[in-house]
Amino acid sequence: MRRLARRVVLEPRQPYDGSQLRPHFVRARFGVAGDAAVVFRGPADVEGAALVDLEDRARQHVIRSADMLHLIVERFEVDLLVGILVQRLLASIVADQVRAQAPGRTVVRNGDDVRVDGRKLTVSIATVSPVSTLIHFGINVDPAGAPVPAIGLAELGIAPDAFAQKLLDALDAELEGVAEARSKVAPAHPEA
Amino acid sequence: MRRLARRVVLEPRQPYDGSQLRPHFVRARFGVAGDAAVVFRGPADVEGAALVDLEDRARQHVIRSADMLHLIVERFEVDLLVGILVQRLLASIVADQVRAQAPGRTVVRNGDDVRVDGRKLTVSIATVSPVSTLIHFGINVDPAGAPVPAIGLAELGIAPDAFAQKLLDALDAELEGVAEARSKVAPAHPEA
Amino acid sequence: MRRLARRVVLEPRQPYDGSQLRPHFVRARFGVAGDAAVVFRGPADVEGAALVDLEDRARQHVIRSADMLHLIVERFEVDLLVGILVQRLLASIVADQVRAQAPGRTVVRNGDDVRVDGRKLTVSIATVSPVSTLIHFGINVDPAGAPVPAIGLAELGIAPDAFAQKLLDALDAELEGVAEARSKVAPAHPEA
Amino acid sequence: MRRLARRVVLEPRQPYDGSQLRPHFVRARFGVAGDAAVVFRGPADVEGAALVDLEDRARQHVIRSADMLHLIVERFEVDLLVGILVQRLLASIVADQVRAQAPGRTVVRNGDDVRVDGRKLTVSIATVSPVSTLIHFGINVDPAGAPVPAIGLAELGIAPDAFAQKLLDALDAELEGVAEARSKVAPAHPEA
Amino acid sequence: MRRLARRVVLEPRQPYDGSQLRPHFVRARFGVAGDAAVVFRGPADVEGAALVDLEDRARQHVIRSADMLHLIVERFEVDLLVGILVQRLLASIVADQVRAQAPGRTVVRNGDDVRVDGRKLTVSIATVSPVSTLIHFGINVDPAGAPVPAIGLAELGIAPDAFAQKLLDALDAELEGVAEARSKVAPAHPEA
Amino acid sequence: MRRLARRVVLEPRQPYDGSQLRPHFVRARFGVAGDAAVVFRGPADVEGAALVDLEDRARQHVIRSADMLHLIVERFEVDLLVGILVQRLLASIVADQVRAQAPGRTVVRNGDDVRVDGRKLTVSIATVSPVSTLIHFGINVDPAGAPVPAIGLAELGIAPDAFAQKLLDALDAELEGVAEARSKVAPAHPEA
Repeated sequence: MRRLARRVVLEPRQPYDGSQLRPHFVRARFGVAGDAAVVFRGPADVEGAALVDLEDRARQHVIRSADMLHLIVERFEVDLLVGILVQRLLASIVADQVRAQAPGRTVVRNGDDVRVDGRKLTVSIATVSPVSTLIHFGINVDPAGAPVPAIGLAELGIAPDAFAQKLLDALDAELEGVAEARSKVAPAHPEA
Repeated sequence: MRRLARRVVLEPRQPYDGSQLRPHFVRARFGVAGDAAVVFRGPADVEGAALVDLEDRARQHVIRSADMLHLIVERFEVDLLVGILVQRLLASIVADQVRAQAPGRTVVRNGDDVRVDGRKLTVSIATVSPVSTLIHFGINVDPAGAPVPAIGLAELGIAPDAFAQKLLDALDAELEGVAEARSKVAPAHPEA
Repeated sequence: MRRLARRVVLEPRQPYDGSQLRPHFVRARFGVAGDAAVVFRGPADVEGAALVDLEDRARQHVIRSADMLHLIVERFEVDLLVGILVQRLLASIVADQVRAQAPGRTVVRNGDDVRVDGRKLTVSIATVSPVSTLIHFGINVDPAGAPVPAIGLAELGIAPDAFAQKLLDALDAELEGVAEARSKVAPAHPEA
Repeated sequence: MRRLARRVVLEPRQPYDGSQLRPHFVRARFGVAGDAAVVFRGPADVEGAALVDLEDRARQHVIRSADMLHLIVERFEVDLLVGILVQRLLASIVADQVRAQAPGRTVVRNGDDVRVDGRKLTVSIATVSPVSTLIHFGINVDPAGAPVPAIGLAELGIAPDAFAQKLLDALDAELEGVAEARSKVAPAHPEA
Repeated sequence: MRRLARRVVLEPRQPYDGSQLRPHFVRARFGVAGDAAVVFRGPADVEGAALVDLEDRARQHVIRSADMLHLIVERFEVDLLVGILVQRLLASIVADQVRAQAPGRTVVRNGDDVRVDGRKLTVSIATVSPVSTLIHFGINVDPAGAPVPAIGLAELGIAPDAFAQKLLDALDAELEGVAEARSKVAPAHPEA
Repeated sequence: MRRLARRVVLEPRQPYDGSQLRPHFVRARFGVAGDAAVVFRGPADVEGAALVDLEDRARQHVIRSADMLHLIVERFEVDLLVGILVQRLLASIVADQVRAQAPGRTVVRNGDDVRVDGRKLTVSIATVSPVSTLIHFGINVDPAGAPVPAIGLAELGIAPDAFAQKLLDALDAELEGVAEARSKVAPAHPEA
């Protein structure tokens, strides 16, 4: 894994409708090149064919929220399994940051999903294009309009801008740690 | 990823000296075939060439603990990156289980490491053989003899046997969830 | 390779026109999730751009048969080479089943093709999508309309429903055997 | 897959004791370079640590036969799954050749194993080295000394030299067919 | 890597507009099957969405030249990294051929780009389809119309037909050499 | 590919006897962690089992030189094909640097080999360990003792230290360029 180019662009607000989950979106929209993690902010409204989660699509689910942080991670390696594992580590990182910044809340990660006091804080998906692996990780700031009980950073008293920046730093540190781990381990001992 | 064969064998106690981190160990010792996750229990004493973490080896570190749970995960795919990502999800799962069973403690995952109230609960490594990916995840029950400030499940009031079983179930559920995620996502939207 | 979800759905009859060779078809049509092998039954009529075999397309071949078993195998790994090798093992399995159930016939596998007494019993293709590997294996029940000399299960006195079920079981056993083989072999001896 | 260099060297006879299953053996012994399939002839006697099949080793099985054809296939790609799938196609090819040359016999392939009239004709294993994938496929000529009921080409009236040559040609044709299949198929149709 | 099928088709002239960078183009247009390297000749005019180099597209660059050799390499493996490395070796080969045939010129390779006396001789891109890796390597014969200072084989006194044939032979020799290198090297020495 | 850690350590002189071609050598000897390219200087004397080039070993070749620059590149990805392609680009870079610094000489790259005025300037090999890909690239400073006609940087009037530093910079730039190329290309156009 290469080092991630990181960028937080909270203003102007920009909606997420699912079409952003495409290769080179962050290059085209934000001019960020290479393996990258970018956070922007805005409402979410995803439904129908814009949903790449086919279970959601089949059940006619929608993703809707008045105000979210939208993290897009694009890595130019094509391995969906790795993409999904990174996505779940991201969920773990998000949960840990909420624990640190909103003590007293019950924060639970379940797969790629983070809930606070039983309410949904995040939506997420990982997929592939022919040239890259893509993750969308949406974190409610104000979940108004959400189709299920939800909670946002505002209610938790967490400032979105600092949260976004810390999230990117933690993700980068996690992946750097993974790369270090890979480079410092000897092969397994041989068969007895 | 295939479904993991799971087994907990806490008695008789068996020491971990690093040589167990080899392909087909769980087949040879416990008769568990295929992709597997097995927990056994016993003291740990690893040093010198038995350490595959070369940073630890260079610094003449030792791994020592009077009583640990030892989880060995072996998967017959050869991809160290995937092995390390799974190892870190394991650390996240361990941390979450401690949070649930020892409320009021401060539990922090950092990479592949879990600390409780600032003290080390776990040791871990992921590596490869020519035929498989291997993870060792050691969780202190009684950390007596550890070279750094450490804590164990006993002090936390957590029963090792139930902890071990829940850990394997949670790991299996995590990897099943990963496989489901992989099979239900459409490719990314095409370039604009 | 993961264990295959298996399903035989012979009624109602459903035509195969090539468009079924797409990712997540078996999930959308039959509700079968994950790595899967599904058999349905119906006429076949594939031509022009619906043919993914470009040699067939260039030669303006058509695939046509009044009544076929259609096996679709989808595995959520992206490796066309593996897909093609599995497809050929499938052809071998089909040939062996016909040998067992229609003794006295001359059954020959040639690549991904099975012929009985010199007449064509099957059509098959393996391909990839960005998220999965897909195989179509069509076995004539009644080959009326076929553009070449063909034969079907009916003429061979083989019941399609039992044949379909045994085929899925044999494919599953084959792939389980492959997984077992992978997990029980030591690496090659080192260079002399 | 590259085209296989093929060679049949039936004289002088050479024993197979398992140590031949190592990278570059065919280069060192026979001077055959690159991806290769070589057949030599001689007795087999493999036991203990020379067995890379760990199930056989654990059960203290031995491989013993007075006279066998020994096919070694080495391909300089490192993918054990592909190696095992090719090995099983080889078993299918061997079974088909016996059917063609010894009509009236009952020939059954089961995984990587070929039996004739219920007796064992072959032994086989596929494994990996850090640089290559290796297959050993042994076919009894005279199975004297075998630890289980066995049969050989001699009793079947099949000449070993022609059999060996045809086997290599058929394997080469199979793998060429696989490569052709890979190069002539369009990607799967997109999601509906 | 498989051996490349090679073909030079300089007449009739055929334009390159970018749409040729698609899977199976050389099969459809020239009837060349399998891994292949084909050179045709004609003007180049590529702009807008026909450009797969997104930096060029964003900057509204165009590729234009009155007369070029167009080498298309298609290999039925899906690994963009390998494709790009091969593309750069191709640039090195082109530079070396120009050095040999036009002594006294200053020939510089920079990435995938070859310049002669500071003027642009080539344009090139490597990309992937779901079934293959594709390279376009365009070499000016007469660069009239090029948007930057450019030079062509004509001015260099190099005959395009011999140049094309030698280029394919050199590429084939390079890739054969790579395959040989892969098959004759022992694994690295073990850790000290 | 990750960014390479680079280091030139010309003093004290250190011999190269082939045993340096092992995983984590540069970490152990020079304290350079992660994907790395390190140049040290000293005599070379490699023969027998220390040669991983099995053709050289079989022919009882030796590598011998009084004074060489030794570049070791280790990347913690396991793909020998990529390692060999990078090795050949390295040869191309070395040839280009000699052309620039010793004008008037005839410099020819042939595979992984660079010759100046028909004499051998370099020796090189690429191989794999279970955790990494390794390249040794030796460049004569003073080729005294070489078993074939050879030439060195001293005779060419090229200062070894500046040459080493420029070589690492050029290799790093090449690989960064490769990574950029990978991240800015759209997938191939779809089948017509």
